Amino acid sequence: MAEFRMHISMSLDGCVAGPEQTLLDPIGRGGERLHDWLVPLAFFKEMHGQDGGEVNESDAVAREMFANIGATVMGRNMFGPVRGEWRTDAPWDGWWGRKPPFGHPVYVLTHHPRSNLELDGTTFHFITSGFESALMQAMRAAGGKDVMIAGGASVVRQGFLSKMIDVMDIHLVPIFLGDGERIFDGEADLRGFRHVRTIAAPGVTHFSFVRE
Amino acid sequence: MAEFRMHISMSLDGCVAGPEQTLLDPIGRGGERLHDWLVPLAFFKEMHGQDGGEVNESDAVAREMFANIGATVMGRNMFGPVRGEWRTDAPWDGWWGRKPPFGHPVYVLTHHPRSNLELDGTTFHFITSGFESALMQAMRAAGGKDVMIAGGASVVRQGFLSKMIDVMDIHLVPIFLGDGERIFDGEADLRGFRHVRTIAAPGVTHFSFVRE
Repeated sequence: MAEFRMHISMSLDGCVAGPEQTLLDPIGRGGERLHDWLVPLAFFKEMHGQDGGEVNESDAVAREMFANIGATVMGRNMFGPVRGEWRTDAPWDGWWGRKPPFGHPVYVLTHHPRSNLELDGTTFHFITSGFESALMQAMRAAGGKDVMIAGGASVVRQGFLSKMIDVMDIHLVPIFLGDGERIFDGEADLRGFRHVRTIAAPGVTHFSFVRE
Repeated sequence: MAEFRMHISMSLDGCVAGPEQTLLDPIGRGGERLHDWLVPLAFFKEMHGQDGGEVNESDAVAREMFANIGATVMGRNMFGPVRGEWRTDAPWDGWWGRKPPFGHPVYVLTHHPRSNLELDGTTFHFITSGFESALMQAMRAAGGKDVMIAGGASVVRQGFLSKMIDVMDIHLVPIFLGDGERIFDGEADLRGFRHVRTIAAPGVTHFSFVRE
């Protein structure tokens, strides 16, 4: 059966973004270090149409993680740095250029309505009816494949609270972000999940959980 | 040169004790799971005068961790469940019986004065003059060996804030303790430390840091 899968990179002090998130620094001060394990991977480069890259334990984890995904759900802050109403004169069309690496429908949670954005191989749908509605629409569109809940912090927190997530990966990066954004703030937690695997890799340790 | 070394077992959501700490449940609800990796080890059994036990990656980490320690500093809540004034009629003499596993002087931080407690091979000193004073006394007593800062949460937090710790191990246990006691609450952090090693073992991942 198709599953809802979620993953997030987290610092050792529980932050998924650094302090002082700004338009120019959307993951906050030091936050980009959370993805230092992912960006050099051969898988990541392939996904973005480039050659080369590192092949290590994380490469295998990333390939497995993105296999069999038929749709993605993300928060508006992951889609881009724009806040408030969408601008119609100079629209923000995502970080990923004309050919985004998804290759399947992406559901962007937002409070501000916007028409579908059709790019090469990927259509972005802007959902104002809430997290569960986005998950349902994504599952229908995934055509029997799994749905990835991709972040950022707010969406992942809603994922925990929804109790709808089947599989969860936490990529723990041994850095400290201090006053950054935490996901485990008391409400959100992983009660009801069972730890099934730990994989230590350069600069990151991957903890996998499944719903009990 | 002799070093100050600190280590703590922490849940994936940053807790070093579970919620609802009580006299009968001093690490809080679920908190004892933080030590499930340590208790079955051959090293731990040896330390407590028993045979057998598991030999795995954690066993080597634990042996290394406790090697060359000449004195230990701990908080009063780690020494025992008693709060407030020490009782003189039925004194609490620690968790460890007549022959504690330390075999060196132990400095217990407390707000309540108490005479030294001399047991077989280990003398407990009760320090009311604060964290740094305890560290200094322990270092002098250690006779050129290292000093271990052993916990609990309050002492570890003071360790971070003191900037005196040379070597730090975090034993990350992939469980969630929800509303438990967190050490990285905004003030305490590991800025100034450099990650040097990750070792994944059954039920725990060991992250090691040194002062830069």
